[in-house]
Amino acid sequence: MDMTIGDFLLRRLQEFGIRHLFGVPGDYNLTLLEQVEALPTLDFIGNCNELNAAYAADGYARTQGFGAVLTTYGVGDLSALNGIAGAYAERVPVIMVSGMPPLHAIIDRALMHHTLGDGNYDNIMVTLRQFTVAQARITVENAAMEIDRVLQTCYRERRPVYLQLPSDLATLPIEVPDTPLQLSEPRSEPGQLQAVVRALVARLDAASSPVLLVDMDVARFGLVPQVLELIERFDLPFACLPPAKAMLPESHPLFLGTYAGAGSAPGVRAALEQSDCVISLGARFTDTSTALFSHSFMDGALIQLHAYAASIARQHYTAVSLGQVLQALGQQALARERRAQRIPPFSASPAFAALSGKPLSQLRFWQRIGHLIEADDLVIAESGTSSAGISGLRLPTGATCITQPIWGSIGYTLPALLGSLLAAPTRRQLLFIGDGSLQMTVQELSTILAHNLKPVIFLINNDGYTIERLILGEHASYNDVNPWRYAQLASVLDTRERSRSFTVHTEDQLEDALAQAAQADTLVFIEVVMERMDAPESLKRFARLFAEFDYGLQPASLPAIAG
Amino acid sequence: MDMTIGDFLLRRLQEFGIRHLFGVPGDYNLTLLEQVEALPTLDFIGNCNELNAAYAADGYARTQGFGAVLTTYGVGDLSALNGIAGAYAERVPVIMVSGMPPLHAIIDRALMHHTLGDGNYDNIMVTLRQFTVAQARITVENAAMEIDRVLQTCYRERRPVYLQLPSDLATLPIEVPDTPLQLSEPRSEPGQLQAVVRALVARLDAASSPVLLVDMDVARFGLVPQVLELIERFDLPFACLPPAKAMLPESHPLFLGTYAGAGSAPGVRAALEQSDCVISLGARFTDTSTALFSHSFMDGALIQLHAYAASIARQHYTAVSLGQVLQALGQQALARERRAQRIPPFSASPAFAALSGKPLSQLRFWQRIGHLIEADDLVIAESGTSSAGISGLRLPTGATCITQPIWGSIGYTLPALLGSLLAAPTRRQLLFIGDGSLQMTVQELSTILAHNLKPVIFLINNDGYTIERLILGEHASYNDVNPWRYAQLASVLDTRERSRSFTVHTEDQLEDALAQAAQADTLVFIEVVMERMDAPESLKRFARLFAEFDYGLQPASLPAIAG
Repeated sequence: MDMTIGDFLLRRLQEFGIRHLFGVPGDYNLTLLEQVEALPTLDFIGNCNELNAAYAADGYARTQGFGAVLTTYGVGDLSALNGIAGAYAERVPVIMVSGMPPLHAIIDRALMHHTLGDGNYDNIMVTLRQFTVAQARITVENAAMEIDRVLQTCYRERRPVYLQLPSDLATLPIEVPDTPLQLSEPRSEPGQLQAVVRALVARLDAASSPVLLVDMDVARFGLVPQVLELIERFDLPFACLPPAKAMLPESHPLFLGTYAGAGSAPGVRAALEQSDCVISLGARFTDTSTALFSHSFMDGALIQLHAYAASIARQHYTAVSLGQVLQALGQQALARERRAQRIPPFSASPAFAALSGKPLSQLRFWQRIGHLIEADDLVIAESGTSSAGISGLRLPTGATCITQPIWGSIGYTLPALLGSLLAAPTRRQLLFIGDGSLQMTVQELSTILAHNLKPVIFLINNDGYTIERLILGEHASYNDVNPWRYAQLASVLDTRERSRSFTVHTEDQLEDALAQAAQADTLVFIEVVMERMDAPESLKRFARLFAEFDYGLQPASLPAIAG
Repeated sequence: MDMTIGDFLLRRLQEFGIRHLFGVPGDYNLTLLEQVEALPTLDFIGNCNELNAAYAADGYARTQGFGAVLTTYGVGDLSALNGIAGAYAERVPVIMVSGMPPLHAIIDRALMHHTLGDGNYDNIMVTLRQFTVAQARITVENAAMEIDRVLQTCYRERRPVYLQLPSDLATLPIEVPDTPLQLSEPRSEPGQLQAVVRALVARLDAASSPVLLVDMDVARFGLVPQVLELIERFDLPFACLPPAKAMLPESHPLFLGTYAGAGSAPGVRAALEQSDCVISLGARFTDTSTALFSHSFMDGALIQLHAYAASIARQHYTAVSLGQVLQALGQQALARERRAQRIPPFSASPAFAALSGKPLSQLRFWQRIGHLIEADDLVIAESGTSSAGISGLRLPTGATCITQPIWGSIGYTLPALLGSLLAAPTRRQLLFIGDGSLQMTVQELSTILAHNLKPVIFLINNDGYTIERLILGEHASYNDVNPWRYAQLASVLDTRERSRSFTVHTEDQLEDALAQAAQADTLVFIEVVMERMDAPESLKRFARLFAEFDYGLQPASLPAIAG
């Protein structure tokens, strides 16, 4: 069938379940935006800037499966780049489309605006190649093939991809397939698959205390149900690495807790480090996942299953898909039936009674939040104090959590919230973010309000970059941020009274605000004022480790490392 | 002498006249920040995000000569990148320093935060290589040499450079030169220099109507005084390309006006296009400089002198420096004395009388601004309506102007204003910016207020992306931005009443606000509300040209191109 290049691309995006396209208009992408405008099934969400648009697409993809962002060549691409790199690091499939100068200008190497003014049209592609798994510059000849190749790769690797669409091509009709894109995982090589499953069964049969260790890829590849089935079929205790927070139900009787090396609770640490068979699923042992590489397993105990590879003992398998391994394993019988010790159901902390006039501490704040979060809530926690606070809570089954633990770009969460809200409009969504982080991307509050979305935003105002102060420079001015009247932001970045804002210093003020928030049919913004150097204990310990790791031995004349 | 690597780097930055280092703290750069904090002669200016920091360093460099920005590896580098690319495109020497993970982690390819979590430590360097002219990853062995090589290259090419400083190296002492860095332009090859000067003299002697055509590099290389001397010595009429706006005095009796191809005033266009000898200085004929490549010169008339190269007739010279050519030329005598027709002094437009209750139009607004700008003012104009408005005015001698005409990244000017204010604190600085642009980088208003700086900011609120509406999608929602209460921003993004804000709709309201602004010893923020589709005439014409150039022939079924 015949279709314009732009309409074909937009059709394909919708096949990924994408109903919202984030971005910023620019003269090189306006024809494609005209095509979006004509579609009732795809909304363009104009962001305040392109970094925020990329973050929003990432939040959308984490919640819905896939996300897309539209930029203008050069300025827009490079502004969005940090968000795209974060999606790569955290395996989030974001499709980036860049409207670029018309093909005739590229061929002529014309000195166009939004280029370096030197005729070079390769530098942006070289750049994006570092942070995406497939790229193409669309031409009339290649459009149908390249769009499908790039999108198929996005599906298979669950990582960002990049398409450059010259501005004079969007409206040109080409011949395109009339069937939907066949989205398929790569097939496992049957011999390798069989070998992996046999080895796993043998190891499980021989093991006295096998455990599963789950990382984020399990959710990215949609394998949570299969993993849960396996856990229950074989009675396998399981732990999650920090980036997989709440991806499996934390109230499950086989859930051990979060494993983070020396940063784990003692029981969890022992269960993992003394197990004779740790089957890890997509595990990446990063610094922040392991309290700086303090993870450790019994000799030969660790089995690594990755998205499309596996390592068992000294054997490496390069052609097995995790989904197929889990499926085949689930059909096996074990020689001896297991009866893992079931873990007593997690008991919620005792009822929280707010003390009148008592200044809020981090400890008490997170205790209170623990009671607030309900099944089906979506919690988004910024890197630093917020993610440390959330990581200390067990979330109810059904509640899910978005953090950015590997890339760790502060400011990420507010725009990610926008994306997540549009992807799951019926869920209650709670954001926890610090003052330094909020200032990074604050304007996206406006876009959230413009679409009349209704999250609850907790702004933890502790007067500067507390996580940095804990590492170095407790009193240094470089860790300060200029204070704002945060509770007035929502009424200034929007003009239609679509929000309620509070500033709370004490436990009872927080309680009042929460009670009013529960009644509000608007966005709720709660500024929570806490002490500068107060932080979850885990964050304080972690900061000390980081100072040692980052700076090493300091000559005596230098400022002592905090702690 | 012995010095720590960090202190040596900071010493070198100060040799470039840098007194303010922009950036955002992060755990990989805190040791260097401790060293900055210990220096009374170098201030760290904490920005709200890294893109804004890069923009600020660019504004600082345009005003002071050189600028510097400090980021954290990965997240910070990529956030700043769009600002660095803009500095490359517009030949602004910005020194970017990235605090990166400790060297031992790099060597181990450790899976650190702020990386892609795959052990790759090359992708950021590959990326920055596209947008800087020299780069180095500092080690103990190479620090003294590499810092000097990279900074020397920044000086010679007046473009951004990039240094990666592992976090464990800043405090290590090394042996360093005790003399200042010898900053020198590359020497011209004497034979080529002589040949160029001879050819220029011959052409000038033979020409009946020679003119100079000046572009931005003349100011970047500090050659304005030499160019002016030459103009006066040889009685040469001159024009500027748009990016060189106000770099030479616009009231000079030999100033023809701005040359922009078909976008020029008729007299200027004729003077350039009918000249038999156009000596261009650093000229880049970009789309926005030439109303889409509509420039045209008489056969063989164009002589191109670039920073380190020249083309005269069909002869190319690759080893001549512009400064040395200008100097040598200035010492020559011409065979016949020239007497260019002096241009009558530019007469300011007739006095502006504000009409009571009359809604502000773009035409009348810019007429009024023409009367406001005084000698020594520094004007910063955002791409779009603002730069089009300013380009229609002749600025008084001494007033200078910052725009970003080639890279054209909207949002650039507000953070650039911060940099420019710190670089020239005694000058009055006026910013003109649109609503869509302000939303991109609004948080930097907070940093301007935090340092108690006192610019006058004109926010042109025309309800969305007017420049895009003029190109395509006049009524399309994708060109909308969510309205804000702009006049309340300054009192929310700061808590100390260091500003006055106004909203004006009519001519007399503007007049009142200007009168009060003149008395204010604070930042002044004037929201100027104007019609959506009102714009300087030049911008309307330009937008139509762009629609044709960008989208080409549109099939009949598609939305008609605006205009």
